[in-house]
Amino acid sequence: MARDTSRDGFLNRLELFVLTHFRGLWWLIQQSPQLTRWVNRFLSNRTIYRVDTRPYPFSLMTLDEHIPDTDRPKKTDTYTSWESLIDRTYTGRHLPPDPEFNQRVDLPDPQEAAVLFRKRNGETIYSEKSTLLFPYWAQWFTDGFLRTDRENRLRNTSNHHIDLAPVYGLSRQKTYLLRTFSGGRLKSQQINGEEYPLFFYEDPEQGVIKAEFQDLYIPLNDEVRLPPERKAKLFAMGVERANVQIGYVMLNVICLREHNRVCDILAATYPDWDDERLFQTARNILIVTIMKIVIEDYVNHITPYHFNVILDPLSFTDEKWYRQNWMTIEFDFVYRWHSALPETFIFAGDRLPMTSSLWNNQMILDRGVGTILEETCAQPATQIGLFNTPDFLVDLTEVPTIALGRKTQLASYNDYREAYQYPRVTRFNQISGNPETQALLEQLYGHVDNVELYVGLYAEDAPEHAVLGPLITRMIGIDALSHVLTNPLLAENIYNKDTFSPVGWEIIHETKTLSDLVNRNVVFEDGPFNVTFYRS
Amino acid sequence: MARDTSRDGFLNRLELFVLTHFRGLWWLIQQSPQLTRWVNRFLSNRTIYRVDTRPYPFSLMTLDEHIPDTDRPKKTDTYTSWESLIDRTYTGRHLPPDPEFNQRVDLPDPQEAAVLFRKRNGETIYSEKSTLLFPYWAQWFTDGFLRTDRENRLRNTSNHHIDLAPVYGLSRQKTYLLRTFSGGRLKSQQINGEEYPLFFYEDPEQGVIKAEFQDLYIPLNDEVRLPPERKAKLFAMGVERANVQIGYVMLNVICLREHNRVCDILAATYPDWDDERLFQTARNILIVTIMKIVIEDYVNHITPYHFNVILDPLSFTDEKWYRQNWMTIEFDFVYRWHSALPETFIFAGDRLPMTSSLWNNQMILDRGVGTILEETCAQPATQIGLFNTPDFLVDLTEVPTIALGRKTQLASYNDYREAYQYPRVTRFNQISGNPETQALLEQLYGHVDNVELYVGLYAEDAPEHAVLGPLITRMIGIDALSHVLTNPLLAENIYNKDTFSPVGWEIIHETKTLSDLVNRNVVFEDGPFNVTFYRS
Repeated sequence: MARDTSRDGFLNRLELFVLTHFRGLWWLIQQSPQLTRWVNRFLSNRTIYRVDTRPYPFSLMTLDEHIPDTDRPKKTDTYTSWESLIDRTYTGRHLPPDPEFNQRVDLPDPQEAAVLFRKRNGETIYSEKSTLLFPYWAQWFTDGFLRTDRENRLRNTSNHHIDLAPVYGLSRQKTYLLRTFSGGRLKSQQINGEEYPLFFYEDPEQGVIKAEFQDLYIPLNDEVRLPPERKAKLFAMGVERANVQIGYVMLNVICLREHNRVCDILAATYPDWDDERLFQTARNILIVTIMKIVIEDYVNHITPYHFNVILDPLSFTDEKWYRQNWMTIEFDFVYRWHSALPETFIFAGDRLPMTSSLWNNQMILDRGVGTILEETCAQPATQIGLFNTPDFLVDLTEVPTIALGRKTQLASYNDYREAYQYPRVTRFNQISGNPETQALLEQLYGHVDNVELYVGLYAEDAPEHAVLGPLITRMIGIDALSHVLTNPLLAENIYNKDTFSPVGWEIIHETKTLSDLVNRNVVFEDGPFNVTFYRS
Repeated sequence: MARDTSRDGFLNRLELFVLTHFRGLWWLIQQSPQLTRWVNRFLSNRTIYRVDTRPYPFSLMTLDEHIPDTDRPKKTDTYTSWESLIDRTYTGRHLPPDPEFNQRVDLPDPQEAAVLFRKRNGETIYSEKSTLLFPYWAQWFTDGFLRTDRENRLRNTSNHHIDLAPVYGLSRQKTYLLRTFSGGRLKSQQINGEEYPLFFYEDPEQGVIKAEFQDLYIPLNDEVRLPPERKAKLFAMGVERANVQIGYVMLNVICLREHNRVCDILAATYPDWDDERLFQTARNILIVTIMKIVIEDYVNHITPYHFNVILDPLSFTDEKWYRQNWMTIEFDFVYRWHSALPETFIFAGDRLPMTSSLWNNQMILDRGVGTILEETCAQPATQIGLFNTPDFLVDLTEVPTIALGRKTQLASYNDYREAYQYPRVTRFNQISGNPETQALLEQLYGHVDNVELYVGLYAEDAPEHAVLGPLITRMIGIDALSHVLTNPLLAENIYNKDTFSPVGWEIIHETKTLSDLVNRNVVFEDGPFNVTFYRS
């Protein structure tokens, strides 16, 4: 049954209609680079300006119960302080805390609300649009900047930039551990004729990390508990989660190969460059290449529009949203795509549990990145939304997320709709057309005004050909664009051939899709591998 | 003799002419708040846009000879790296390094060039415009954000914001040491009926710092060498230089009093606020109060214009210069006002060597801040420029500054003129009308194109009624405005009554001059003290 769209707002509906119809007109517009830039600028700004821009008056610091770094009990209410304006180790927030909403006695227990995410009769809903590559990419990409501090979930360990921390490490000191200091290259090894990072463990039996990587990160408990044969194949990469799943590992491996490939091109073109210059320039090129793929391949996959956004950073230098980056709790919440990963997947023709792909690099070594990515793109992701989170993840991730929303006192779903310029919904069928969703929401929350953000975000039906519901799409768009386009490498006096070198500038501009990046870094026989976010 | 202004540029000359004439018209304009805001916005933007805006492609990191935090030798040439774009512990720079210029064999030895700063026949040139309060304020104010790292002069220990670090310390941990945690107040004591910070030393004889202040800072060598009776009177304040000179100390003391005064007002107005909220809100109010004085009292004193700039931060949210702050080497150089302090000054009617005012808080305790500030404002500063640096400072500061300019490979004076939209000078009399300056510059540099930035900045004659020469004024204006107005407390969603409270908002807006701030924090009998940057 179709969702009741009467409360979507006239302009919102008009915009969606225009952008998802008149394909010929949009095609025509995109024949003109100038017109494309103009429309791109208009649509991007229109998206970002839907809500107040950074800096925001509050961060999650305003809710911490202790003065940081002391045992002294802290403030009891919410206000702006110099420290909360400056200290980005506390995660940001768009809307102020709403203690009243979150202290309501009639909100369901998080355990109870989590039933909304649990599969119905064990049934998995597959995505009609996206291949399994889509969640692989999303997890890898967002893990570089959405980094909750495990010691205090109000804080983060993010650099607040797309700096490819999973590839290069979170700090200069960690980057050093990954570099060869020769030819600009990252440390690597050849296995089956292809390039991989070095292995992390010196003695997997005893769990002894190689001396050179000891300061790279403290292994997660999941890693510590691995059997020796799994540990033996873990790679030395930038962050503690980089070996978590084969999708993550493969994308990191592709970046390592691209970095070293670019170094070799630069060294051949500019023979007088030293190691440091080769390394730094290759990193600059790779960061921007990834941002180009994010905007021109990944974002366009998410939206259902006929107009394809482009990476055109110099169009935005005068915008008041162009401010210091600061990851927000809302950005974190809209990216909790626990439902996008199926419980099983096809590997070498066999259906395997997804859990077998965790911490399991042998899978990659056995078959090679290209072959696996092609198989990844021949099977669907699961649909992001309710009733679709694998059972073992519901208690592990959905329940704590709902609890975190309460702890951080997020405003209600309807308040967020209003702040992001969607009219407040008045009936449950304006959120979803699914009678089961409607009934369950009503049973749990009683009134639409009581629905909390996390639930509402994922309860909304996605429009035709879209990956996500309207509100979550808008919220992702705002934080994604306003954080990507403010990367210092894209800034007015920096985004030029001096920074990237003429040959680097060419590499950036000849990359349009993830397929381009992958296929120049894998060995193939019968033509390039099919690497795409789109189900065919 | 008058400087030859033929190479000042037509538009520059026109602008100066218009702004320094038609007093009646400018008065009339400033009767309209709306017109004032419009002109203020136009002139501020016109100033800032004279040169490329942040972020800049290079920082001083690009010249460091070692990879930071390792002994590995670093790159040998200059290019943009991710690290140089991100790491603000390296000082920024507007123009790229110019190794060729700085490696010229015909540049004079820094020792030799320093003769330009040395007094002629021991004669001191006094300022016609400024009282001694002017350099006192400038030193105190800039010391909060222009903080060269003494371990590596390419780096800094700045927070890159006006956050009143001299009052509150450089980090949260240091701020804690200065707080009472009661009523929001900073630790203080009453002496002779007036409020002062606590003393820093537990046992001045043995040089033992009080336990509560041990982590505040590591004392400078100058402090360590002080006799016990001087140590006994040092105050516990935010930074290691805060006790350096009575001017610095008095301004810090006034801020402490204002902070505690504001706390008491807030506590009376909002009786349910806890210590933390009182402290944080008072700090917010004080920071913005100081910025208001900077713009509306201090900056207007520097310029010779009939139009007075105002603090109107919300006019600039759309500007592309509104970027993350990053102190530059150029900003540091234009603020090296070693010539502004006379060698002697009047204290309690006696002429004393200025050196007697160093590390000497007893002077303040004996007579009180108000009385001394009034006497400070009854005597002139010295003129900022050549031939006017106290002898003992020439070797200590001018020679190393010239050497640092070479090490950081600053472009030439003429290159900076061009970049900041002044035509290049072609003859020495276009820099200064003083025949002695002209002759000495010619003797040292041979050609105007060889003059280095630091020398050229201070060699330029100031226009009538101005404090500084044209290029240095422009360079200060750009970095000052583009760093002050981007303070997060002045940002669109933060600069409002919610952040400062209604009563705090009033305190900010009723402050126009340093005199306002001082006179509400001192005891006076026969009317307020005369506190002004202007010689009467």
